[in-house]
Amino acid sequence: MNISHIEHLGIAVENLDEAIKYYEQVLGMKCYSIEEVVDQKVKTAFFLVGNTKIELLESTSPDGPIGKFIAKKGQGIHHIAFAVDNTTEALKTAEERGVTLIDKTSRKGAEGLEIGFLHPKSTLGVLTELCSKPK
Amino acid sequence: MNISHIEHLGIAVENLDEAIKYYEQVLGMKCYSIEEVVDQKVKTAFFLVGNTKIELLESTSPDGPIGKFIAKKGQGIHHIAFAVDNTTEALKTAEERGVTLIDKTSRKGAEGLEIGFLHPKSTLGVLTELCSKPK
Repeated sequence: MNISHIEHLGIAVENLDEAIKYYEQVLGMKCYSIEEVVDQKVKTAFFLVGNTKIELLESTSPDGPIGKFIAKKGQGIHHIAFAVDNTTEALKTAEERGVTLIDKTSRKGAEGLEIGFLHPKSTLGVLTELCSKPK
Repeated sequence: MNISHIEHLGIAVENLDEAIKYYEQVLGMKCYSIEEVVDQKVKTAFFLVGNTKIELLESTSPDGPIGKFIAKKGQGIHHIAFAVDNTTEALKTAEERGVTLIDKTSRKGAEGLEIGFLHPKSTLGVLTELCSKPK
């Protein structure tokens, strides 16, 4: 598995507008995109810090993954996404090395990336995403 | 406040040796330093991913900050550290913009950096560190 950098960090927030205000007005970052991902039941806002994105995630439904996360743990960092050459191959490698996969093969994520998640029970509690640019 | 990149991510782990094994053997990263920070009651292991470090944190005492974090929330991402030009000035700017500070002025952290923490109650639940190279 060849990880080049941290592609993004997903951060669960209760209120996207309030969160954008904090990241822009306090930390001085600039939101460059807002996107709704209907099947994940989230609205997202993106910021670029160095070559890593911050992806703020507001749940559009209490029964979505972010809604459940906030109910259990409160607002905070939800997942880390590593950039790899090829998500499908990296998922296969992870599985061969004993990791339980959430996604057996890659699927389309935000910004058109090929993504797949590893289960936090085999990544020491860190929900981990692998992602790559489509070939 | 001028944030150039994510300097590191702090990840709380129960067992540093087991965690190093996961980051090296599964994710293919290389641990380049192990350091004990006595006053924070932690043993740390560092990895470089792109230009961001991953700092694994094992508590050396149940009453240290990482021990308490794991008792409450389990293993996982503990804090995010942004690289700034000057930590003391950035802390002052954050306070002027309404953020509650954990550290009023900068102090020495791991790897000789000048560091200071913002309180998660005013950073939407994300324990946030600012850090800069000493001048």
